[in-house]
Amino acid sequence: MTTAEVETKTRTAGRFLERLDAAVEANNSLLCVGLDPDPDRIPIGVGLEDFLVGVIEATADLVCAYKPNAAFFEQYGDEGWRILRDVIAQVPDEIPVLLDAKRGDVGHTAEAYASAIYDWVGADAVTLNPYLGTDALEPFLVYEERHVFVLCRTSNPSAGDLQDVMAGDVRLYERVAELSRDWNTRGNVGLVVGATYPEEVARVRAICPDQLILLPGVGAQQGDINAAVGAATNDAGTGVLVNASRGVLYAQPFKNGCAVGGWAEASRNAAHDLRDAINAAR
Amino acid sequence: MTTAEVETKTRTAGRFLERLDAAVEANNSLLCVGLDPDPDRIPIGVGLEDFLVGVIEATADLVCAYKPNAAFFEQYGDEGWRILRDVIAQVPDEIPVLLDAKRGDVGHTAEAYASAIYDWVGADAVTLNPYLGTDALEPFLVYEERHVFVLCRTSNPSAGDLQDVMAGDVRLYERVAELSRDWNTRGNVGLVVGATYPEEVARVRAICPDQLILLPGVGAQQGDINAAVGAATNDAGTGVLVNASRGVLYAQPFKNGCAVGGWAEASRNAAHDLRDAINAAR
Repeated sequence: MTTAEVETKTRTAGRFLERLDAAVEANNSLLCVGLDPDPDRIPIGVGLEDFLVGVIEATADLVCAYKPNAAFFEQYGDEGWRILRDVIAQVPDEIPVLLDAKRGDVGHTAEAYASAIYDWVGADAVTLNPYLGTDALEPFLVYEERHVFVLCRTSNPSAGDLQDVMAGDVRLYERVAELSRDWNTRGNVGLVVGATYPEEVARVRAICPDQLILLPGVGAQQGDINAAVGAATNDAGTGVLVNASRGVLYAQPFKNGCAVGGWAEASRNAAHDLRDAINAAR
Repeated sequence: MTTAEVETKTRTAGRFLERLDAAVEANNSLLCVGLDPDPDRIPIGVGLEDFLVGVIEATADLVCAYKPNAAFFEQYGDEGWRILRDVIAQVPDEIPVLLDAKRGDVGHTAEAYASAIYDWVGADAVTLNPYLGTDALEPFLVYEERHVFVLCRTSNPSAGDLQDVMAGDVRLYERVAELSRDWNTRGNVGLVVGATYPEEVARVRAICPDQLILLPGVGAQQGDINAAVGAATNDAGTGVLVNASRGVLYAQPFKNGCAVGGWAEASRNAAHDLRDAINAAR
């Protein structure tokens, strides 16, 4: 089951980058909605798959991408893995899907991860961890139509433990941004930079003017949309996916001006407000 | 499904560290056998689960631990996840199981990964990636009886891309080794250091004299057993798990002096030879 031998099950033909551009334009949106099923927060009496598909149906004309995170499916075991694939298959063809998996392993093993994520799960893009260097990324990069997003400066409080270490005259996350330009020979390498650190976002954009930036950490993680989006967009006011997960998924009724209706309508209202707030910051 | 709320399904009671010591002593072995099912190399006509359980039955008195790698199960999708749990459940209670998953994600997501790996899969220990810093590790560390192995200096050719970056007056992997002492307040943090780099193994052992080292890269990856094991063992000649995966799993009949019998006997012979070679290097 090497990359050369398996039949690749692309959801739809075409490069991720072009499909993303089309979705951004069609929906006038840089919003990526994270799909992180939390057993404690899914509405009572609603199945996991029905909940996620309901949120997708309620928001598909407001987003540029969906980003399921593998961890939240894996906590349900084999059943979670089946649901992950089934949910992705129900995302409308015109919206690309990015699996947040943060994988990183040696070459032979990375091939198996790439096969799992691209061929079995059917994701269009994936997040990867750069700690193992070039040969851990290469088995993903050969899928030229897919896209990888390499962790650069993450959104969590202890991100700086390693990422801010001075590596010569730059910080480690800046070194990763520099390396990502070398990894980008096929044009399919983006970066993950947390919205919680707008100054670092600006540094990465300066080092990598032409690559996509995935910007997690708005909403529940309290990143400042104006500062982060302003720093992340490229000269054309695009080139960024702004991710919100819990803030959209678990918006709940009676918040965000939604007086009637249920969780799906609340998610739609939250996505609508976020899309507009992001556009105001472009 | 937070760590506080779920019922933890430990395979057997007791700390990983003590269970490992008991297995090392009982089998006089530092050998950890990696369980990496490769669809191109499993004997024709033998099922994936039967193959792995057959290798376990043939080697369980020669090893100190087993190390399934999540990637090789995930390439089979939900069925692979089911088999991963079923295979682990069939490992004899006295042999601890380490899941090679190399996970690393922000706190809330790391909790879901910890729940997946410890509560659902049922592993006794796990490999983790340090790139996100302390708060990505903490949700695993609170499972005090389990053990984590943090990637420090990996066995692959491009390991040095980030890990050898000079971070002040030490290299990044040495900084990770230093940090791991802080993460080890509960005594459940080890390190992964590739056998392919014996000098780096010696550096890590000097920084962390009392922590476990997982040493992958002997066998198929051609690490020098004598140099690497000599550098990795602590003052008592132990404190290390020497991992071999393909060299044992796919030993095949008619190699290693095995003139009759099948794949299970070949795996047993390969494990026997490796155990003895490792012991000679202690």
